[in-house]
Amino acid sequence: MKPIGIIHSPYKHRREAHSQTNRSEEISQIEVFEEFKEGLKDIEEFSHIVVIYWFHKSQGYSLLVKTPWDDTLHGLFATRSPDRPCPLGLTIAELVAREKNILTVKGLDALDGTPLLDIKPYVVAIDARSAVKAGWFEGKLGKRRG
Amino acid sequence: MKPIGIIHSPYKHRREAHSQTNRSEEISQIEVFEEFKEGLKDIEEFSHIVVIYWFHKSQGYSLLVKTPWDDTLHGLFATRSPDRPCPLGLTIAELVAREKNILTVKGLDALDGTPLLDIKPYVVAIDARSAVKAGWFEGKLGKRRG
Repeated sequence: MKPIGIIHSPYKHRREAHSQTNRSEEISQIEVFEEFKEGLKDIEEFSHIVVIYWFHKSQGYSLLVKTPWDDTLHGLFATRSPDRPCPLGLTIAELVAREKNILTVKGLDALDGTPLLDIKPYVVAIDARSAVKAGWFEGKLGKRRG
Repeated sequence: MKPIGIIHSPYKHRREAHSQTNRSEEISQIEVFEEFKEGLKDIEEFSHIVVIYWFHKSQGYSLLVKTPWDDTLHGLFATRSPDRPCPLGLTIAELVAREKNILTVKGLDALDGTPLLDIKPYVVAIDARSAVKAGWFEGKLGKRRG
């Protein structure tokens, strides 16, 4: 598992990065390493991209976790906690611009220096679902605890 | 990077697995290893889950690829090809049932025996986007070549 790039963002520490459920308007730069640049052909035609990255500041995990949204212990895989057995981060980011191997994106809440693992085009027919039951998240978004 | 489970599916060979853009109704079973079972608490409350897995049959990649959708070479990162530098697969699957550490899902087009890396709850506010520009995919879905 070899990174294909690195993420440059305004978030230097974990406490600064927004929870994904407070969608951010911050701008980040995704630097794709030169050796993979050719693989970006046509990416600028997409308005949104799937960004998969490595939560490199993650240190271990618990299988039951409390989130910022309530006081209940939830199973780790029913949460978006960055502390996971395979600490893979996933964000659908808005692609604002591309200049050579640098993608400027909005709404990617990864820490500065995060290793980039993959980029995929976001396609509604593949990735979007409606009529979704959001389990314990229902009604909690925007109502962060404390 | 250690798998947290294994996917049991009707797809034994790559040629049998549907392209993700022909959304399948096939049923697969996700077996989460016993040691991670506790992390599934509350997952059954969600109708859809994000499944991240390892394209274990992937052997190398090209940075420019042809897809089943047209005769044009596209940049790899503007396609959903399984042959990638980090061969990470991503599917939003419908969660049909949970029995202990086995999740029954619909629409997960991974090969039988695929290593499972992560499960996250699918939450519209986090994962879904509308008003999306789908680049070269526009108008091509459902019109597979040959």
